[in-house]
Amino acid sequence: MSKQITSRAENYSQWYNDLVVKAGLAENSAVRGCMVIKPWGYAIWEKMQRQLDKMFKETGHENAYFPLFIPKSFLSREAEHVEGFAKECAVVTHHRLMTNPDGPGVVVDPSAKLEEELIVRPTSETIIWSTYKNWISSYRDLPILVNQWANVVRWEMRTRLFLRTAEFLWQEGHTAHATREEALEEVKKMINVYAEFARNYMALPVIVGEKTESERFAGALNTFCIEAMMQDGKALQAGTSHFLGQNFAKAFDVKYQTKDGGLEYVWATSWGVSTRLMGALIMAHSDDNGLVLPPNLAPIQVVMVPIFNKDEQLKAVLAKMNEIKEQLVKLGISVKIDDRDNVRSGFKFAEWELKGVPVRLAVGPRDLENNTVEVARRDTLTKESVSGDLVVEHVKNLLEAIEKNVYQKALDFRNSHILKVDTWDEFKAKLEEGNFLLCHWDGTPETEAKIQEETKATIRCIPVDSCVCEEEGKCVYSGKPSHRRVVFAKAY
Amino acid sequence: MSKQITSRAENYSQWYNDLVVKAGLAENSAVRGCMVIKPWGYAIWEKMQRQLDKMFKETGHENAYFPLFIPKSFLSREAEHVEGFAKECAVVTHHRLMTNPDGPGVVVDPSAKLEEELIVRPTSETIIWSTYKNWISSYRDLPILVNQWANVVRWEMRTRLFLRTAEFLWQEGHTAHATREEALEEVKKMINVYAEFARNYMALPVIVGEKTESERFAGALNTFCIEAMMQDGKALQAGTSHFLGQNFAKAFDVKYQTKDGGLEYVWATSWGVSTRLMGALIMAHSDDNGLVLPPNLAPIQVVMVPIFNKDEQLKAVLAKMNEIKEQLVKLGISVKIDDRDNVRSGFKFAEWELKGVPVRLAVGPRDLENNTVEVARRDTLTKESVSGDLVVEHVKNLLEAIEKNVYQKALDFRNSHILKVDTWDEFKAKLEEGNFLLCHWDGTPETEAKIQEETKATIRCIPVDSCVCEEEGKCVYSGKPSHRRVVFAKAY
Repeated sequence: MSKQITSRAENYSQWYNDLVVKAGLAENSAVRGCMVIKPWGYAIWEKMQRQLDKMFKETGHENAYFPLFIPKSFLSREAEHVEGFAKECAVVTHHRLMTNPDGPGVVVDPSAKLEEELIVRPTSETIIWSTYKNWISSYRDLPILVNQWANVVRWEMRTRLFLRTAEFLWQEGHTAHATREEALEEVKKMINVYAEFARNYMALPVIVGEKTESERFAGALNTFCIEAMMQDGKALQAGTSHFLGQNFAKAFDVKYQTKDGGLEYVWATSWGVSTRLMGALIMAHSDDNGLVLPPNLAPIQVVMVPIFNKDEQLKAVLAKMNEIKEQLVKLGISVKIDDRDNVRSGFKFAEWELKGVPVRLAVGPRDLENNTVEVARRDTLTKESVSGDLVVEHVKNLLEAIEKNVYQKALDFRNSHILKVDTWDEFKAKLEEGNFLLCHWDGTPETEAKIQEETKATIRCIPVDSCVCEEEGKCVYSGKPSHRRVVFAKAY
Repeated sequence: MSKQITSRAENYSQWYNDLVVKAGLAENSAVRGCMVIKPWGYAIWEKMQRQLDKMFKETGHENAYFPLFIPKSFLSREAEHVEGFAKECAVVTHHRLMTNPDGPGVVVDPSAKLEEELIVRPTSETIIWSTYKNWISSYRDLPILVNQWANVVRWEMRTRLFLRTAEFLWQEGHTAHATREEALEEVKKMINVYAEFARNYMALPVIVGEKTESERFAGALNTFCIEAMMQDGKALQAGTSHFLGQNFAKAFDVKYQTKDGGLEYVWATSWGVSTRLMGALIMAHSDDNGLVLPPNLAPIQVVMVPIFNKDEQLKAVLAKMNEIKEQLVKLGISVKIDDRDNVRSGFKFAEWELKGVPVRLAVGPRDLENNTVEVARRDTLTKESVSGDLVVEHVKNLLEAIEKNVYQKALDFRNSHILKVDTWDEFKAKLEEGNFLLCHWDGTPETEAKIQEETKATIRCIPVDSCVCEEEGKCVYSGKPSHRRVVFAKAY
């Protein structure tokens, strides 16, 4: 089974693609740039959604749903926003098809042209702030803490499953506040929710930081992000939280009456994560045998494979398995017994390994005699024989150990690939080896652009949670003075 | 608060619209025919989703996600399907905007015309069966039991919030089977899942039946439905399950190798419910004071309103309320304490009544002295004083009683508005009074069409779960012989 996958060493990019397709996570569709998320991939995404949704609600947010379409004119209301977003998008121009008068099939009915074209949302700030105008008149209406789970479309030229697709699934939080301070607090709160989710559920260490001006969201005054390291040393931006100031309130004329009777523009934030997280999850932990899932996001945490030659053996083995399963399910562990009779157990082993199920239990006739269970863990690919009396407790502890180990492995890898670099030659050399570079930068977009031009490295973020960066130094490129290090890397 | 709503007697249609908007369920957006689902409405929809999703998974289904866009040519592959669906839809013709060279804003870039237009999915049979072609080659690959939660677009001319909108949210199950029998079993299983959901969660009695040929889904050999009665005696189709035969397998050339080496086309079903269910829920149970929610779908089941004059009173009341809340939450009951200090308690009472929260508890200083709690139920608008020691148990039982009562009330109403009718004069008279009519029909589409033309009544279904309909008789319109009664009604 694993032979279907190109090894990481051979071709990292091909390995990723093979894994996504062979593990049944996603595939390309008949529509250019749009993917089909297959059941196993979607089940992982659902686990992410459930947990994130819970965290959003615990921080006071509610869900709502806004239209898929945005009137074309809305996009140009906020000047920077249109520059950043309006260009590559799906444009609806007609609302009817008709039978082809000149042949088979259907054609667009030319008489059904829309007065104003509609854009399939690339992001929803404009349609949402045009709605908020009707929801907000007084300080009593604030804050609005709303999130939306939705699909969005950005007409990307080069697409890759999960990482960059024309259509993708995401959540977008859009909040409205009375004061600048409250909005800024929200922006930081939500980037920390993302960081906590990444660390505790995706087993993914992330750096929390601010974007430089040139990497900010179109229309934002500031963008916070979480950046994760993939196994090739490249960065993946896994979530962003934007401080939008009063830009969208001004563009859509959203004012509120203050407690003392004044009239002020409303302050805004937006924040989002997408099915891109699936790409991060896959690339951070998986190996040449397939997917490695942290137990907290595994749709099936334990798979059981019966070993048997004769039918009466199978019956006895399944009875034992059902007994174990019942106890595991009581502990909140998700279990599947793979009792298919049209494939061999070796095939099953390889398939569940490929799909990343954290723990595999095998029971055969000899195990029944000895009251043992073979326990295999996906992250280390090791196995051991465990007494049937202890197996439930063992599996419970093992799942926790795997979650920790997957995180620790990713953290160790990242820590060994973050380097302080102070000369330009070292910068170029270490970048090519696949590292995050902690460097001094003179703070100008010009230097940032030149570095990107020469090396393809971008400033992933100005870290906010690691004091190690606050120090005086000289820009690695221009030699000009700098007060703190920033993170440079190549990125997905 | 309730004065904002037109009464049902005055104008049923306006009552519905007022209620949807004022209770914060949904509103029209800036995009023609597209609604904004507001937080309270979305929270109810989420409860529906969670329960349905659970029931789908319990019946062996998995979720997946397919593209929003469908290549135009796909729609005409299945001949009947294109007739039924391809006409009024959103057509994407371009993939880029550009800065307007002749003025402000952006315009469609004429150089970014798509080679083949893309249709925003009105339903996904075509894109899904084009995908299944790659997933299915052997009987081992069957059955495929997949569901998708998604948005769809049908360019309706006359729209009404939740009932008929250009964009709506739904789930669509698409299954693939080796045999006709298995597919038919699936079709029936899923319509029964819908009926069970409607009855046990929406407190909505429904009639399960088959559609006549002229009311079938475009491309289906048979369509099963659940039909519910609204308070004006009109019918609302709340869910459908389609037997698609081998039509889509043939259109997309999906064959499988049988166990004995033959090659057969695959059998298909599809089934769906949508945000239309919100309209059914609202119109079936609500009253002139606002929404009435069955407790099983209420995002907040119990709201608590503190009664106080002075701040120290509030503190003592809130302490008592938190104590009760904690016990209710332990029982799995969702509770909100409305401690807003900028609106009066009378305003809060009216607001939660409008929003349909099943149980309201009020505690004031006198209640603290007497160890009592005022308990009000939304369905009957009655209230009573309950001992503080018994209130938790009382509320728990009350929620169950309300769920039953809301169902029983809807059932009694429906039963008193289903009439056996045998003459054409009676048909016309009883239809106008707002009834479901159980009539004999001669089985011809011609008679069906004439009845609709003259009265606007359609055959809602040929009931499958009530044997009362199986009897000999004469068509109410043509007088020709008939073997069973069918349900005629005006419908949403």
